[in-house]
Amino acid sequence: MASDKVFIFDTSLRDGEQVPGCKLKREEKVEIARQLEILGVDIIEAGFPISSPGDFQSVMEIAKAVKSPTVCGLSRAIEKDIKTAAEALQYAKRPRIHTGIGTSESHIKYKLQSTQEKIYERAVAAVKYAKSFVEDVEFYAEDAGRTDNVYLAKVIEAVIAAGATVVNIPDTTGYCLPEEYGAKIQFLMENVSNIHKATISTHCHNDLGLATANSIAGVQAGARQIECTINGIGERAGNTSLEEVVMIMNQHPYLDLYTDINTKLLTETSHLVSERMGMPVQANKAIVGANAFAHSSGIHQDGVIKRRDTYEIIDPLEVGVDHSKIVLTARSGRAALAYRYKNIGFDLTKDELDRIYIEFLKVADAKKEVNDEDLNEIIKHERKQVA
Amino acid sequence: MASDKVFIFDTSLRDGEQVPGCKLKREEKVEIARQLEILGVDIIEAGFPISSPGDFQSVMEIAKAVKSPTVCGLSRAIEKDIKTAAEALQYAKRPRIHTGIGTSESHIKYKLQSTQEKIYERAVAAVKYAKSFVEDVEFYAEDAGRTDNVYLAKVIEAVIAAGATVVNIPDTTGYCLPEEYGAKIQFLMENVSNIHKATISTHCHNDLGLATANSIAGVQAGARQIECTINGIGERAGNTSLEEVVMIMNQHPYLDLYTDINTKLLTETSHLVSERMGMPVQANKAIVGANAFAHSSGIHQDGVIKRRDTYEIIDPLEVGVDHSKIVLTARSGRAALAYRYKNIGFDLTKDELDRIYIEFLKVADAKKEVNDEDLNEIIKHERKQVA
Repeated sequence: MASDKVFIFDTSLRDGEQVPGCKLKREEKVEIARQLEILGVDIIEAGFPISSPGDFQSVMEIAKAVKSPTVCGLSRAIEKDIKTAAEALQYAKRPRIHTGIGTSESHIKYKLQSTQEKIYERAVAAVKYAKSFVEDVEFYAEDAGRTDNVYLAKVIEAVIAAGATVVNIPDTTGYCLPEEYGAKIQFLMENVSNIHKATISTHCHNDLGLATANSIAGVQAGARQIECTINGIGERAGNTSLEEVVMIMNQHPYLDLYTDINTKLLTETSHLVSERMGMPVQANKAIVGANAFAHSSGIHQDGVIKRRDTYEIIDPLEVGVDHSKIVLTARSGRAALAYRYKNIGFDLTKDELDRIYIEFLKVADAKKEVNDEDLNEIIKHERKQVA
Repeated sequence: MASDKVFIFDTSLRDGEQVPGCKLKREEKVEIARQLEILGVDIIEAGFPISSPGDFQSVMEIAKAVKSPTVCGLSRAIEKDIKTAAEALQYAKRPRIHTGIGTSESHIKYKLQSTQEKIYERAVAAVKYAKSFVEDVEFYAEDAGRTDNVYLAKVIEAVIAAGATVVNIPDTTGYCLPEEYGAKIQFLMENVSNIHKATISTHCHNDLGLATANSIAGVQAGARQIECTINGIGERAGNTSLEEVVMIMNQHPYLDLYTDINTKLLTETSHLVSERMGMPVQANKAIVGANAFAHSSGIHQDGVIKRRDTYEIIDPLEVGVDHSKIVLTARSGRAALAYRYKNIGFDLTKDELDRIYIEFLKVADAKKEVNDEDLNEIIKHERKQVA
């Protein structure tokens, strides 16, 4: 058993829900929250209560509906936001207010038109105010990925002193390389004197395809919470995929980290979120894509038929998929063809397989994917000719 | 200008083409190859000629169709495969044969039922045989990601001595963490005496969502070719996404690496491959997804309207997208609403904006995405009431 737990903070219903094309009714949000609870998520970010009356109501109903996970509501470092979040969370068994403000030069200068000193004060005030409502307060330093480390450490130390239980270091624009992001977490571990009083959280965006790698670099450097979403949905190119970081920790024991996620429910949760949100998952999506466990090249099929782990690191059963798929195409070899014929009741001799393989390739070149019906046609034709 | 070039080896037409669901006619393969040439790809892996007569023909026609890029054909370490690849490449201006064999314990023992010594000999023999047809021979050490580094270095040294110009170190099962993969390349750089006579290539799979990060770790350690595909298509969870690694090098000058890719053609190339292959790209795909440059949360919209780079690291124009999208949903704020009203000809006063915003949220909570027609309805209603 790995020694350290990494908390999984799912923001599918907040960062994921806000994307163009996503359509979720309130009862569907509650349905997804219940599924996340069964999946074993530690914290559910249920929404951004100040943003609209509908979102306020959703957060309130999710807070009522789930028992084990902490339910979290987002707010800006603005009193009205924080108060509204607290109201929306009033029925939560474990409420958490997530508040914060931009700390990068770009955000301070161009978005907030403020100064480092004023932002520092607003950050501390926001955490103190949130603390007057709930014990569990998470602070986000927006655009931390592009924030100067020395200033960032100063802000983080101050918000922990003000009572923040979790400090979130978002790579808001998806800019960092894994080594940079890991070094940033490391810097905080080494330069924030009270860092042991709070949990560091990662929140990575996938604009350059690095969200998963950055989150893992973060926990390797000392973070113990990962913010992520099912299927990697979220603003722009999305967030870290829950299923990817969970399976990385699961597959790499030397990281010595574990999560409480029941991996066998990953696939059904992915399907539920994709269907309810109307957000299709591409076939080649890691872990949960339709092709994630499909083998079509002859070289790979031959290997997998001999022994699954020649080409698969994850047993599909571990993530709730029944079996590896052996798909027959013009790239398939004799091994896969014999395997599939065996599955439908034909034991071919070597000669027969050689002859049938030539016919099979003709069909496959023309038709692309060859199914059992085609196989039956081919063998019928072949045996008739021989007879 | 960065000092070192990384060669882009596109395998969309080989590793990408072999996946379930992908449907490509021969003329479409040629069309895609021509697009890859315009995009600036250095090497096009056109197919696996021995696998079927159709694929043989496709490789031959692609070899005839393109001028600048090297055209590459895959083969196993088997004479018939290599000879067939050479035949298919006979009209290529710059032909390359890609040959190789599994080097991991799992592959040697369970797939090939052989020994390290015999595999070493087959690897050298294959490269020598390929060399009798073409000058440019790439060797792949299949499942290098799980291959013992000392044995791997021995094989790589021998194939370079036998004439390999490129040595490909595939993480076939998508198992490695970036630091592990980088360390493997580093080990080869330091322990293969003739390594300077060849180019090291990365070939990473995305089973754990780390293909992009692993490829970058590879070039940081000394690799100078990346094998990748448009949209990250490929066996199982796919390959490294061309668009992601190219934009990472483009956005991180301190890596001091460049490619010859014309990034402005990335989006149109992505669309072409997706459409011709019948493989949809998910909305939150990095760089080329429909939402990659869309902003829907109020906080983000406010920032982007004030200054694009508060939330965007890549100018959409750089990858061939016209503009960032400001999508109106219940998560949008007053800044975005005023911005969109201005776009359709209404300059709202502060009071008017406050009143209209309340109406807007009702529509947005019910309807999800609010379009210009809705905005016109809302303002008509509002102004009628005031009048």
